[in-house]
Amino acid sequence: MTSATPRKPHLLHLCWEMHRAGPPMQDLAHGSVFLKRCFVFCLVEQLVDEILKLNEDPKIHGLVLDLPIGALSGRVINSVTPEKDVDGITDVNLGRLIRGDLSECFVPPAASAVLQLLDQAGERFNTVESSSRWITNQQRKRWDVRALKLQPLSPVPSDIEISRAQTPKAIEVLAKEIGLLAGEIESFGRNKAKVKLSLLERLKEHPDGKYVLVAGITPTPLGEGKSTVTVGLVQALGAHLGINSFACVRQPSQGPTFGVKGGAAGGGYAQVIPMEEFNLHLTGDIHAITAANNLLAAAIDARILHEATQSDKALYNRLVPTINGVRQFSPIQLARLKRLRVDKSDPSTLTPGEVSNFVRLDIDPSTITWQRVVDTNDRFLRKITIGQSSTEKGFIREAQFDIAVASEIMAILALTDGLADMNKRLGNIVVANNRKGQPVTAEDLGVSGALAVLMKDAIKPTLMQTLEGTPVFVHAGPFANIAHGNSSVLADKMALKLVGEQGFVVTEAGFGADIGMEKFFNIKCRASGLYPNVVVLVATIRALKMHGGGPNVTAGKPLTKEYTEENLKLVADGCSNLQKQIQIAHLFGMPVIVAINVFKSDTEAEIDLVCQIAKHSGAYDAVSCNHWAAGGRGTVQLAEAVERAANEKSTLSFLYDLKLPIVEKIRTIAQKVYGAKDIELSPEAQSKVDLYVKQGFGDLPICMAKTHLSLSHQPERKGVPTGFILPIRDVRASIGAGFIYPLVGTMSTMPGLPTRPCFYDIDLDSDTEQITGLF
Amino acid sequence: MTSATPRKPHLLHLCWEMHRAGPPMQDLAHGSVFLKRCFVFCLVEQLVDEILKLNEDPKIHGLVLDLPIGALSGRVINSVTPEKDVDGITDVNLGRLIRGDLSECFVPPAASAVLQLLDQAGERFNTVESSSRWITNQQRKRWDVRALKLQPLSPVPSDIEISRAQTPKAIEVLAKEIGLLAGEIESFGRNKAKVKLSLLERLKEHPDGKYVLVAGITPTPLGEGKSTVTVGLVQALGAHLGINSFACVRQPSQGPTFGVKGGAAGGGYAQVIPMEEFNLHLTGDIHAITAANNLLAAAIDARILHEATQSDKALYNRLVPTINGVRQFSPIQLARLKRLRVDKSDPSTLTPGEVSNFVRLDIDPSTITWQRVVDTNDRFLRKITIGQSSTEKGFIREAQFDIAVASEIMAILALTDGLADMNKRLGNIVVANNRKGQPVTAEDLGVSGALAVLMKDAIKPTLMQTLEGTPVFVHAGPFANIAHGNSSVLADKMALKLVGEQGFVVTEAGFGADIGMEKFFNIKCRASGLYPNVVVLVATIRALKMHGGGPNVTAGKPLTKEYTEENLKLVADGCSNLQKQIQIAHLFGMPVIVAINVFKSDTEAEIDLVCQIAKHSGAYDAVSCNHWAAGGRGTVQLAEAVERAANEKSTLSFLYDLKLPIVEKIRTIAQKVYGAKDIELSPEAQSKVDLYVKQGFGDLPICMAKTHLSLSHQPERKGVPTGFILPIRDVRASIGAGFIYPLVGTMSTMPGLPTRPCFYDIDLDSDTEQITGLF
Repeated sequence: MTSATPRKPHLLHLCWEMHRAGPPMQDLAHGSVFLKRCFVFCLVEQLVDEILKLNEDPKIHGLVLDLPIGALSGRVINSVTPEKDVDGITDVNLGRLIRGDLSECFVPPAASAVLQLLDQAGERFNTVESSSRWITNQQRKRWDVRALKLQPLSPVPSDIEISRAQTPKAIEVLAKEIGLLAGEIESFGRNKAKVKLSLLERLKEHPDGKYVLVAGITPTPLGEGKSTVTVGLVQALGAHLGINSFACVRQPSQGPTFGVKGGAAGGGYAQVIPMEEFNLHLTGDIHAITAANNLLAAAIDARILHEATQSDKALYNRLVPTINGVRQFSPIQLARLKRLRVDKSDPSTLTPGEVSNFVRLDIDPSTITWQRVVDTNDRFLRKITIGQSSTEKGFIREAQFDIAVASEIMAILALTDGLADMNKRLGNIVVANNRKGQPVTAEDLGVSGALAVLMKDAIKPTLMQTLEGTPVFVHAGPFANIAHGNSSVLADKMALKLVGEQGFVVTEAGFGADIGMEKFFNIKCRASGLYPNVVVLVATIRALKMHGGGPNVTAGKPLTKEYTEENLKLVADGCSNLQKQIQIAHLFGMPVIVAINVFKSDTEAEIDLVCQIAKHSGAYDAVSCNHWAAGGRGTVQLAEAVERAANEKSTLSFLYDLKLPIVEKIRTIAQKVYGAKDIELSPEAQSKVDLYVKQGFGDLPICMAKTHLSLSHQPERKGVPTGFILPIRDVRASIGAGFIYPLVGTMSTMPGLPTRPCFYDIDLDSDTEQITGLF
Repeated sequence: MTSATPRKPHLLHLCWEMHRAGPPMQDLAHGSVFLKRCFVFCLVEQLVDEILKLNEDPKIHGLVLDLPIGALSGRVINSVTPEKDVDGITDVNLGRLIRGDLSECFVPPAASAVLQLLDQAGERFNTVESSSRWITNQQRKRWDVRALKLQPLSPVPSDIEISRAQTPKAIEVLAKEIGLLAGEIESFGRNKAKVKLSLLERLKEHPDGKYVLVAGITPTPLGEGKSTVTVGLVQALGAHLGINSFACVRQPSQGPTFGVKGGAAGGGYAQVIPMEEFNLHLTGDIHAITAANNLLAAAIDARILHEATQSDKALYNRLVPTINGVRQFSPIQLARLKRLRVDKSDPSTLTPGEVSNFVRLDIDPSTITWQRVVDTNDRFLRKITIGQSSTEKGFIREAQFDIAVASEIMAILALTDGLADMNKRLGNIVVANNRKGQPVTAEDLGVSGALAVLMKDAIKPTLMQTLEGTPVFVHAGPFANIAHGNSSVLADKMALKLVGEQGFVVTEAGFGADIGMEKFFNIKCRASGLYPNVVVLVATIRALKMHGGGPNVTAGKPLTKEYTEENLKLVADGCSNLQKQIQIAHLFGMPVIVAINVFKSDTEAEIDLVCQIAKHSGAYDAVSCNHWAAGGRGTVQLAEAVERAANEKSTLSFLYDLKLPIVEKIRTIAQKVYGAKDIELSPEAQSKVDLYVKQGFGDLPICMAKTHLSLSHQPERKGVPTGFILPIRDVRASIGAGFIYPLVGTMSTMPGLPTRPCFYDIDLDSDTEQITGLF
């Protein structure tokens, strides 16, 4: 401190993009003297000249350099005299600084980091305070998002034709429009960007927006359009009502894209674009999961082989080698010693018993639950025998590959709230038991750090946009068959901060509300601490007719006339399922808006009837939606209803206490949600429950693996089945993800390719570089 | 045409970054009137105001809008009156335009596309001409690449510490420095960008730079540092001699990164940075290969199952279904009909025999050569049994997984010269024979279009940088054990155009020169049509001593004193191998520079001795290199020698004529390159040769699968073995990639994990987001 009275900061803002940095100039000036001028320099020379002049100006106490990275060369930085304080950009430093000594980090609107901190506390405080205020105001206001115009055609073209006809905004443009700083995004080509988690730190004091869950009634095998409603709803909110709004959706598996189902990016005029980038590779998250999953799998079998073929001493010498005369444990080995309650750090001091405990995981191969994965529909890998090469010395065993999205690592990605938490969850993954019945984890195998390294980019949500130019986060997509089937906690959290208090985040729960929504509340909301405001329940006349007693609906077969002609009786009877699903949402204390996803063959009388019944059944509102044919314009009524309902008071109540015994938790879900009379555990299921309790995993939430085609376990029972006993065939655990999953019947974890897979129609035009047939 | 005399274009260049767009202003002005002013606008409003003023100015005939994408909004574009011509940026349009009616596309230096073409032929011509001239000049001149300063430490820190201590330039900055247009790159985060193939079209009339191949003597199992020499050499050329220069290197497999070997990005002060991004995921190319490879594998087994369980009619109905009353073949099915010589396009007109031929690929499972892959060292997948789930109805068979980089699709990626060629190669992949002994291809399976779609981004090389800020292309990395082990043709081609006539492109051939270099010339150069100017042959004192009779060198064991102390006798004796490898390079007509990769324990006398022998053996020059400890500064002498040698005349001659019989081609390589007395084919190998000839594949080049640890097939035979008979155990074919590969002994295609894999040390710090232990 060279002066007794702290001076006010006299900073000069050297701005590069004035249309961005304009406002803070005035605002930052609070209590300071700022030159309200904007310098824009074409040549580094000019900039340097200007800085040299400013060096001589005693009124200027410091500089905020708000420049594109390319211009912030060493020459520029070095031209500032040491007497001046410099705040400036580089995205490299952002992460460091946010975690640095400026916990209330100074983040000017377009700059991203402080190169040299103000050296006087008073000044720092003022700067930080006024800067924060500016950002807060910024974040509370409505975005200036340029909507992309839609001119829907009739008949509606194929999804890829619609997607291709629209030119998305460059992703940097969208990022800027929604208040992301340049240093917070990592572009992946022109249309996708990963968003850094540091955003959560920057906006942590900001209020969340409104949180909307899109769920569905029990669907037909064709699906009832939850994804299109999700996308259509944000198109309506954002592009038509001018409300800050975000969709958070799942990344689709590539397996089905080339198999039976085709892509998944919404559909018709409610899509995430470009749809081919959404469906293929995206930003590599599923590939990262595959790599991490399979590294762990390879580590398990290799370890079994090495333990079986080596003495304790040989193992120890290899696991803790002497390198350049020094022998030491790696940090992950020290962690294992700690778990073994061996409080030593010098490898030479372990007793033979301790050595043996340390080097032998003693995995019981019959208890291995960790499977390999591929993101391909490869039915021949459902059951395989591995280790048959002579190099594996006869250690053969039966194994399987699952589809990549069924990996527990995908569930972890969806539930984690940050890097530290992800690392912990990855380490906690239980892959097998040892011969004493104790769990063996990824950390025991020494591989959890490597898994985290493989997942370090996948943890950042990917920003894309809808057909109408509103923002979408695509992140995670756990297999709804055996996991919770919801997109990521992190994407929801980031979106809720970005939209601001008056904005909306819309996310989707896989399958019917009895499965996806129940897991959303009991698993995802517990993990995130976020409470939604409204549930949108998607229904189709088609599905309601099926529940009302209509003939079977099968993929690939034409619909019968019950579905193509008006039939009010079937609709009315089928509304039993809708009523039940509304009640389920009410169990959690949520207001429900029924969204009827309208098809061409639906009649006005049918739609009116459903709306009437829905409202009588306690729905806050019921509206028809026409987003598939009309885009956001077709969902404005739904958006308005959602906006109204979000202003109602709602309180989330969980369905069960985690402290309840596992079996009680399962029974609660079966009875209260599915309407079962009771549950029945197989002996295998019961013994697994006992094991998990013994291992200390009794307090985890439950993730039911049940068919989505019925409220019961029998897909053919439509409407609202009653009186059934829900059989629990087996119980498994995803300890890293943090849930127990009871298997109700046999759940496939690897789809197959049909005789004529989708890939027959898919091609790449080598002249135009355009994809054809991806629908 | 409204005027009889074509007017000269009066364009106003509205520039955003004047330090970039400066030169063309003057140059474009040739024959035109330009306002030599630079407008830079902070607010779209100001820009619009300016345009409105210009609208009124009759002297201004048109505008070149050279702006960042974000500023080029509809408002800006719309503010220009229809009377003015507008040339402007958007990267979206670049691709279209390059293929569009402006075949000599107008590409202003920083802009990327013409929004609205000049409407008068004369004007267009002038603009195009002057613009092309500017670009041509531009491409011929020296780049303005800002070198990153190195301050090497001693002792040399770990690779990741060195990498992390350097802040790479933002990749857009580097791209700009080397003359890439904004629309030609797709950023992947801050440090990597894919470069579009349209670059080759833009620069097709430009001369290529000099082309340098880095090869090695027969290595020890530790490797002799070809990658570090490659990177060190371009650091010297680019950052120290100021010559435009590019390194083209392979993408490493993630398997070894977590297994035994660790990463591969050069090493010490000659690295590609950030090394962790180089080693992990990169831009997803290997993941794309894995996805494509495994989709094809899944298609094979699924097809066998479906054919075995369905009648001709059922198969036909499913393969060519009636959709909305219409039944038609997909394009890929029409292609198959054509191959079957069935000239019909109406599905209802096929005879039962034609239907049967069409629907039945009749794959003989015992002939399947297509394996599944993972990018993980998973030894338990070396030999497996698949199809054991009851859903596969007993169609079990033995199979295997290879490491992903061993996929033929990787070899295709490395050898292709563009999208159309890649599509063709993917379709040509032979996966098995049918029961008549005819090849079954990916196109027969209907999946080749989908493979191309999965590979459409992987085909673009990835731009990164060296520790000293010079450009590097990372692209492809075919497994040298069974493929040709060279980086991609496309990256080399693009780099050769970018560096310009006086510039240098340095690439590397895997393994010793007897393998990697021989394949580089006979396979890669044949495919690319590119002829190198110089071969750099890397040698180490360590490897020479081994060839001179020194004790075994084994990974993980300390070196004996023969290697750590001066021993001129061993060095002199070991130079036999060096001499032989020089002779091999001379076979192809290339001048050779021997680069001694210096280690701390090497003595001056040893180094001098090698230089002397090398020059006596016909090397153009021999120099020592110290890049590992000193960066590019340590390789300046090599760079100067390379520059001199490149000005010598050299003519590439191939070793064999493709029309020779397969066995003769193999014999030629064995005798002339390896020094074998003769070859000996196993009966299996001979019958495969006969089969391939019968199938029409006799004219392909040969890709030997031989140990790299000896010139012979016996790894323990060092120096220059003679008199041996090279056994050919089996012969296989990669028809899509376009080579026949004889197996000399057993080649592993799946590495394993050791007792203590690298992953034990790898961790992610969740606070700093930094990776530790990735070496």
